[in-house]
Amino acid sequence: MTPPVGEVPGIAPGTSFEGRRALSEAGVHRPLQAGIAGTALGGAVSVVLSGGYEDDQDSGEQILYTGEGGRDPRTGAQTAHQLLTRGNLALARSHLLGQPVRVVRRVVGSTYRYDGLYWVTSFWHEVGRSGYRIWRFLLEAQVPSRPERQATTRLSRTSAHAAQVKAWHDHTCQLCGLRLSTPAGPYAEAAHIRPLGQPHCGPDTPENLLCLCPNCHVLFDLGGVGVAHDLSLLGRPGALRTARAHHLDPTQLAYHRAHVYSEEP
Amino acid sequence: MTPPVGEVPGIAPGTSFEGRRALSEAGVHRPLQAGIAGTALGGAVSVVLSGGYEDDQDSGEQILYTGEGGRDPRTGAQTAHQLLTRGNLALARSHLLGQPVRVVRRVVGSTYRYDGLYWVTSFWHEVGRSGYRIWRFLLEAQVPSRPERQATTRLSRTSAHAAQVKAWHDHTCQLCGLRLSTPAGPYAEAAHIRPLGQPHCGPDTPENLLCLCPNCHVLFDLGGVGVAHDLSLLGRPGALRTARAHHLDPTQLAYHRAHVYSEEP
Repeated sequence: MTPPVGEVPGIAPGTSFEGRRALSEAGVHRPLQAGIAGTALGGAVSVVLSGGYEDDQDSGEQILYTGEGGRDPRTGAQTAHQLLTRGNLALARSHLLGQPVRVVRRVVGSTYRYDGLYWVTSFWHEVGRSGYRIWRFLLEAQVPSRPERQATTRLSRTSAHAAQVKAWHDHTCQLCGLRLSTPAGPYAEAAHIRPLGQPHCGPDTPENLLCLCPNCHVLFDLGGVGVAHDLSLLGRPGALRTARAHHLDPTQLAYHRAHVYSEEP
Repeated sequence: MTPPVGEVPGIAPGTSFEGRRALSEAGVHRPLQAGIAGTALGGAVSVVLSGGYEDDQDSGEQILYTGEGGRDPRTGAQTAHQLLTRGNLALARSHLLGQPVRVVRRVVGSTYRYDGLYWVTSFWHEVGRSGYRIWRFLLEAQVPSRPERQATTRLSRTSAHAAQVKAWHDHTCQLCGLRLSTPAGPYAEAAHIRPLGQPHCGPDTPENLLCLCPNCHVLFDLGGVGVAHDLSLLGRPGALRTARAHHLDPTQLAYHRAHVYSEEP
């Protein structure tokens, strides 16, 4: 049975619980030990911040949450890479599904407080202080409500750089070679290699853009495909298609490999 | 040579011109007769509203602009279908490119006024008062600035209906059969058959949604593919994939055929 997503009826944000068992019985966070509750397909339903991970950062409305796994159960030290499986995969799934996650904070001793719904606005991986790979999830309390993508939301005041990159490649996907033909002419998207915005802060320049079809854009942004130093593709056969005028910044491709591309199957 | 898109340096909105020749020589709207200036690949650069089309509607910030073609040059009466070619195709292209179009209004006699930049926020076709097909373009003076689509903008507070439709189809595209697999699990989009919002006002219900991959979503929204009454596809071979629990509203598919799907090659 899929545990319910969203508010638990009758339990307002700010409600406190004495001990993990009380938290579990109230249906706010079911597992007695795990920090992340949920499933790979249905997404995460709740997380507990107990101050256990030295890499966590909590500024109230924004939480930089470190994934689970790879820690010595006795010492708590990170002794192996974290994988995008189990609870980590559930949080990534919540991102894709646009689903909220209940956030519980340990406030003092064994007292826990339910602090409301947060959204997983992005996720990536990095090398933690231990030297091992950790998965990171940005949880935000306020997410602007957006309708599902539709024709008119595709419109944007396209940057000149994006238009230039699409023209250089004649709207042909650099990953799969598809040139999506529509009644209004060919359609492609300009994808940032190192993502814009916090925490990645990639530049909006042609050297940081790829011309992709919408399907490959989704896969590239979610780490399903990467580009090696020699421009061969990672995660599928083939090589990146290039255009003479379009110079790429290899450091941005390296950033994508280091933080976005997921080598796990 | 592609004519320049955007403001003409030194010519502020509100500037008047006496006659089409003056308008042309200033570089605001080059053609002496045509209402739409631009190219199929580069998009439209300017339009003139001269009150010639009985189907036009102008409320200042929003213009419902009727495409060109199919009119008797002597009487001005609509005597044939309009096609998504020439100036009409240029305006559709501006929509895809996210490019602004200069708008010129004939204010009185042969006096024309440049009224600034507008964006083509949507386009569709319908049967005009004459009984012939006309193309319509919604031009808007204010368009919220949006970055190119990226991973975090894909996040939305997905409606329960959208999640349900994706689950019924196990995230498999109803048009092409692709199930896009990412490290965070399968990815699909819920596409409205009759579009939401003005002027279409489609409902946000499962009966008006399809489960599509991003590429087919773009094609469906832009009229590159349609669905016939017997669920065979229009514009490509094959038939719509169905799921037993997912009931479709045939009137919404008929609406899409009548206003969005473009049977022209």
